[in-house]
Amino acid sequence: MIAANNPTLKSWIEVPENSDFPIQNIPFGIIKPKGKEPRPATRIGDTVIDLSALTDFGFFDELEIDNYGIFLAPVLNDFMELGAPIWSAVRHKLSSLFQYDNKELQGNEEAKNICLYNINDVEMMLPVEVGDYTDFYSSIEHATNVGIMFRDPENALLPNWKHIPVGYHGRSSSIVVSGTEIHRPMGQTKTDDANKPSFGPSRLVDFELETAFITGKSSKLGEHITVDETDDYIFGMVLFNDLSARDIQKWEYVPLGPFLSKSFGSVISPWIITMEALKPFMVDGPIQDPPVLPYLKSSGKKNINIKLDVSLTPENGVPTIICNSNYRYMYWNMNQQLAHHTINGCNINVGDMYGSGTISGPTPDSYGSMLELSWKGTKPLTLVDGSERKFILDNDTITMRGYAENDDYRIGFGECVTKILPSK
Amino acid sequence: MIAANNPTLKSWIEVPENSDFPIQNIPFGIIKPKGKEPRPATRIGDTVIDLSALTDFGFFDELEIDNYGIFLAPVLNDFMELGAPIWSAVRHKLSSLFQYDNKELQGNEEAKNICLYNINDVEMMLPVEVGDYTDFYSSIEHATNVGIMFRDPENALLPNWKHIPVGYHGRSSSIVVSGTEIHRPMGQTKTDDANKPSFGPSRLVDFELETAFITGKSSKLGEHITVDETDDYIFGMVLFNDLSARDIQKWEYVPLGPFLSKSFGSVISPWIITMEALKPFMVDGPIQDPPVLPYLKSSGKKNINIKLDVSLTPENGVPTIICNSNYRYMYWNMNQQLAHHTINGCNINVGDMYGSGTISGPTPDSYGSMLELSWKGTKPLTLVDGSERKFILDNDTITMRGYAENDDYRIGFGECVTKILPSK
Repeated sequence: MIAANNPTLKSWIEVPENSDFPIQNIPFGIIKPKGKEPRPATRIGDTVIDLSALTDFGFFDELEIDNYGIFLAPVLNDFMELGAPIWSAVRHKLSSLFQYDNKELQGNEEAKNICLYNINDVEMMLPVEVGDYTDFYSSIEHATNVGIMFRDPENALLPNWKHIPVGYHGRSSSIVVSGTEIHRPMGQTKTDDANKPSFGPSRLVDFELETAFITGKSSKLGEHITVDETDDYIFGMVLFNDLSARDIQKWEYVPLGPFLSKSFGSVISPWIITMEALKPFMVDGPIQDPPVLPYLKSSGKKNINIKLDVSLTPENGVPTIICNSNYRYMYWNMNQQLAHHTINGCNINVGDMYGSGTISGPTPDSYGSMLELSWKGTKPLTLVDGSERKFILDNDTITMRGYAENDDYRIGFGECVTKILPSK
Repeated sequence: MIAANNPTLKSWIEVPENSDFPIQNIPFGIIKPKGKEPRPATRIGDTVIDLSALTDFGFFDELEIDNYGIFLAPVLNDFMELGAPIWSAVRHKLSSLFQYDNKELQGNEEAKNICLYNINDVEMMLPVEVGDYTDFYSSIEHATNVGIMFRDPENALLPNWKHIPVGYHGRSSSIVVSGTEIHRPMGQTKTDDANKPSFGPSRLVDFELETAFITGKSSKLGEHITVDETDDYIFGMVLFNDLSARDIQKWEYVPLGPFLSKSFGSVISPWIITMEALKPFMVDGPIQDPPVLPYLKSSGKKNINIKLDVSLTPENGVPTIICNSNYRYMYWNMNQQLAHHTINGCNINVGDMYGSGTISGPTPDSYGSMLELSWKGTKPLTLVDGSERKFILDNDTITMRGYAENDDYRIGFGECVTKILPSK
């Protein structure tokens, strides 16, 4: 086990019980302290740590990071560009600096006043500049549910599904950070019994429970990245709410795929959890049968045991947990997704984002979308206040959470929160 | 007619007969002179004009462009960001500076030596940093041909096609400039008679003759841009070769659309032709029947009479023109495409690119792809050297050209050249 993941590590910063952010996590994000410019940060417990200020105080001098400006930037792209050895070195330095017996910063009141903030005193910003965004469709339970509902229960999975980690290009510009409120989209829809389409607010706004990974290394046009090489490219993961307007999607998506039904907003959690922090939670994936083509073969533990849940909170109401799922259910892993993505020579960039696809589990309470949970609206969900939901109503808030844990500690993602406002 | 489009204007720079680049054009691109950094430029005849050097000599002082650095940047995004009045002012200043009787630069040998290059002495670079890229599907002839070949000749157009300018998200990272050589993609395909997919080089590499427009103004998430407002957002157009691997596409595209069949490379012509230069060539579009929903209604001349052709040149061979088409055939215009794109609140950025979709005309020689020209390979094309083509072979070069012209002058796009190399 690598040092920064040592379960016996404790920090001199207070970490509440069951916090997502023990000293073993060391996530990366962008904070905006009041009256200051956005800058890179990490988090321990409820304390956020300004990496630009740590740089000013010389705490990173020994790392010989050759571009001083990386921790002054308003996004993490420049930092990621430095490569996996630097990601690891910075994480380990932070782990060491905040260990309970390290006095370097702990004993410097002036530096602590400048470097540390309470999480409630900063605004969380989008952590990366997203170049391209791809969404996969890699949960067999989700693909099967959709196939049963909209095609043929006897042949729910399309013929390509077990051979290809099916994916499609998504919209980067409308990826926003947790807390951003999203207006219900206007658009064109057609009901089955209408003879022409009509225009108005979507009536079927849905969430999709996903994670996304972010690449921290680029490749050149014409290059392939093999499954074995992919680990060097993947910086970390976030929670991802792939908001979807089901009625717009139904009318627009043939033959070229979802477009405006997805691009009105996609929401990510603000802290990027590194693959290094998640390493202790790697598990085997499902057996892939039929066997995949050689360029997609992966070995070892490549799935991750990340517990996921989704709650819905009406305006001024209380939350109801409506979904409990787990990232370990994924049929296709990230390494296969990235190898497939580049097998045609497609180049990737630092900051590109890759959604997992809706993460549904095997049981009805683990389905990762309202579409599946309410089974196309035929089985409304009952909330704790007694009200019912088939899809998301105006002023409802969707909150996604995720964490991996063992007997010693929890590596969590925090929250991905999205309130749906009325259309405008 | 605006001054810069005045047909009587002549330049003191020599303009060859039938040049795409008379003084009425004034396109914008990025040049890389030998041993120098990439920088913005325009072109008259076969002379390219370094806008950073013109800035150094003070020729833009009167424009009061508040950010001096815009013409030192390696892409045009910062310039576009300044807005339509500045685009127009710069174009008019250039038009004036290069008029035959203007001695400001013409009479300054030192400045001419520094500001002007022959086109053969510079490398053309990608002119913009592309944020998001969307591809539409707006030629009724193309959509009909595809429907006849792959679905039902009696119902070739899908039900949504005449109601929606169908589009989908594409890959930005693999958009490259004319002249970039592209390797035949590797990938997964399945023939109809095979019971499982196989892996190897695509056998059905195709071009798609398109144009693309580029936005020079951004919008906010949640905002709509109306059809009437769209003109303020569209900076200009380029030729666009939407390379496609038909066998990969066929196997992967259900249900979420084309992915790796498109993302191995898309090629644009290097000069962005401004909407202002194209204005004299605006024509009426086709009558849209059934009528479109109110948010898509457009009035006035919104199509453009741009003659387009495609030639195929075998290795060390001579070109054969295999397609003659015209942008005026488009069923959906750019204004409708952009209004549709944002009706759900999707935000757009400066530098975003929007492909027209394959531009096929009504006659078989005007079809904009090999798929249609060879009718799925059933009618091979005969080249001038006697060889046949169903799709693109290794080392074939595809060259697209486009121009609008009237009795007085021609506004051309130059060339979009793509050589397909063997897979690697």
